[in-house]
Amino acid sequence: MTVGKYLGRLIRLDEAIKKAISSVKVETEVVEAELESALNAILAEDVIADEDIPPLPRSEVDGYAVRSEDLMGASPTNPVRLKMVNKYAPMGCFPISTGQYVPEGFDSVCMEEYTEREGEYVKFYKEVGKYENITPAGADIKKGEPVIKAGTVLTEFDIAALAMLNKQFIKVRRRPFIGILNTGSELIPLGEEKRPGKKVNSNEIMISLLLKQFNLSGLKLGIARDYVEEVKGRIRLGLRLCDALIITGGTAVSSEDVVLDAVREIGKVIVRGIAMRPGRPTSFAVVDGRPVFMLSGNPVACAIGLLFFAIPVLTSTFRIRSFEMKSVKARLKRRIGGYPGYRRFVRVKLSRKGEEYEADPVAIHGAGMISTLTKSDGFLVIHEDIEGYEKGRLVEVKVFRFLR
Amino acid sequence: MTVGKYLGRLIRLDEAIKKAISSVKVETEVVEAELESALNAILAEDVIADEDIPPLPRSEVDGYAVRSEDLMGASPTNPVRLKMVNKYAPMGCFPISTGQYVPEGFDSVCMEEYTEREGEYVKFYKEVGKYENITPAGADIKKGEPVIKAGTVLTEFDIAALAMLNKQFIKVRRRPFIGILNTGSELIPLGEEKRPGKKVNSNEIMISLLLKQFNLSGLKLGIARDYVEEVKGRIRLGLRLCDALIITGGTAVSSEDVVLDAVREIGKVIVRGIAMRPGRPTSFAVVDGRPVFMLSGNPVACAIGLLFFAIPVLTSTFRIRSFEMKSVKARLKRRIGGYPGYRRFVRVKLSRKGEEYEADPVAIHGAGMISTLTKSDGFLVIHEDIEGYEKGRLVEVKVFRFLR
Repeated sequence: MTVGKYLGRLIRLDEAIKKAISSVKVETEVVEAELESALNAILAEDVIADEDIPPLPRSEVDGYAVRSEDLMGASPTNPVRLKMVNKYAPMGCFPISTGQYVPEGFDSVCMEEYTEREGEYVKFYKEVGKYENITPAGADIKKGEPVIKAGTVLTEFDIAALAMLNKQFIKVRRRPFIGILNTGSELIPLGEEKRPGKKVNSNEIMISLLLKQFNLSGLKLGIARDYVEEVKGRIRLGLRLCDALIITGGTAVSSEDVVLDAVREIGKVIVRGIAMRPGRPTSFAVVDGRPVFMLSGNPVACAIGLLFFAIPVLTSTFRIRSFEMKSVKARLKRRIGGYPGYRRFVRVKLSRKGEEYEADPVAIHGAGMISTLTKSDGFLVIHEDIEGYEKGRLVEVKVFRFLR
Repeated sequence: MTVGKYLGRLIRLDEAIKKAISSVKVETEVVEAELESALNAILAEDVIADEDIPPLPRSEVDGYAVRSEDLMGASPTNPVRLKMVNKYAPMGCFPISTGQYVPEGFDSVCMEEYTEREGEYVKFYKEVGKYENITPAGADIKKGEPVIKAGTVLTEFDIAALAMLNKQFIKVRRRPFIGILNTGSELIPLGEEKRPGKKVNSNEIMISLLLKQFNLSGLKLGIARDYVEEVKGRIRLGLRLCDALIITGGTAVSSEDVVLDAVREIGKVIVRGIAMRPGRPTSFAVVDGRPVFMLSGNPVACAIGLLFFAIPVLTSTFRIRSFEMKSVKARLKRRIGGYPGYRRFVRVKLSRKGEEYEADPVAIHGAGMISTLTKSDGFLVIHEDIEGYEKGRLVEVKVFRFLR
């Protein structure tokens, strides 16, 4: 893939993401899943409550269950005295703590701080309204109604609600598998003996781990050499096993654009290069109705193409719930230029200075070096329309590293 | 645990977090780990590079390798013509793509966009400096120097760098196990037949999944009944297996504060209740030099105590790298009050309105209902010093749900 080919016709990142998202619609099949394994999966059916939660009226506070009429007229100067009882009797009260069921006969709960204990008696300094501090039966989850609706991407809280209803198995959409195919005749698998001119396929492990961090499941498809037929065969195999593909490399001079050539023969290229730096060769195609991402073989451009293009498209397409890199504000230690027309991803090192962070851009040159990532803490993303930021400017940094 | 006990002496959340963090120092032992499994682990030794990366000078662009002196004087009006060659000869050039090694004899690379091909010849419209567009051998990783230093919490990029050096195994600190112990005589495990007065232990699965989302590993220790001796025994067992404990419940009226009583006998209570709502009973102790979190048995207070107290303490104590809930700005659909003196966690439902989000507070009452979480999208966190927010105010919402 040569630089010249993009000149003057590169799509902007946001537009590329939109275009990619709107060009495919994939849905995985419905499977029965054990409840705990269904976190972040798409619920495939309405789950109907077969019982009320709570099953009985429940106290919302620590205090005493009472009948509200017994406390009529109670005030700080005129407390009402009730006797502690095990079951309701007129002018009786029952000690209760948050979450406990209210025994029959009582209709409200008075908070402990408005009471005073005197042996078997309790003095109440306040009236209570009927049903005050009580959650009625079924107020949380109502029998016969859907607790969680089909299509919901399940959170930990949804799973907890389903657990309350004792649902051990539920129907969800199978989670998608994202195939990882690395092309390059120079690549060898991690652990194989190194020979001259060969490099370890470090992108495979990096992509697999980055996907995991965003709740996506990678499936390693290994290395393909720079031959169109070989790459094509591997893509076909990959799409029999996976719901989407991430392909890296394919930019050897001897066989320029091997990956693009292969993809073009069996699918449709939708995005060819993106106005982002690093990551310019990042491309996207649809093959057999499934998303295929083509990333640079350069580890830094690969990481940035994955993080800022492929992952947003994948999480939207497959409705994947995921967390994000933390954002911190930091003051720039020196001027940094943008690349007008391009989204620029500057790697920065953060350091604490008093209450603030300072951000120091790492390696303006050497965009392709992994050390620009191992020696930095986060990304400063510079928008296409920004000329640059002056020294001392407060900027937002997306942090990928543990910060004390 | 009764409300009255806290009145007037509750610690603020930020202070509670600081106090808890500074009260323990835990370090797990060093183990040998397979590279891919070491993501987010703490590296236990400097890893020294045993080779240069790149091993040879490498091109940073697509174009032609040249000797810079051959292009002296080249300009748009006065291009210099070089012949394509396989190995260096005077006035020769070699087509090269980004990342390829530069053959001996050439000392710089001219970008393709400043050239024009003419059969076996290439016209160059620009001079190049010596070493221009070339990454020297060892520029990324230098042989004999540490690539990643001991103490680093490993990112995907660090792992990629270690993979480049063909490191299959590295020494890291074992990841901590966080024990989950749920107390309450009313609890039954998920899947067991329900009987009157019994509830499914839904907090266990919720805590386990929330920990996972923050790259922490939970270990389920099951249910303990509300007896001090039983709880004490389980805590002791838990601390033989785990590096930290999360305990829920223990607030049955019949045996008030069972968990606190048990913990007090074998350890030291550091934080007793926190000025947060929900989550007031959230407490913290150190037992056998390890952190023990006591959370409400109420699922909502439990979730909030975990997310906003226990997880920040755990990720700091064990140096866990994790991602965060996404923050979005949203306009309040109605007024919402704070609880001055308390950190308030309001659950809100988000909806799109044009380019903006609108936030609708869910269930001002019924703080303890799981449906306030299943029916909402995120948390609006109201600071202790805020009286409340007016309708129409732009607020920040921490989103825990997939949003299109």
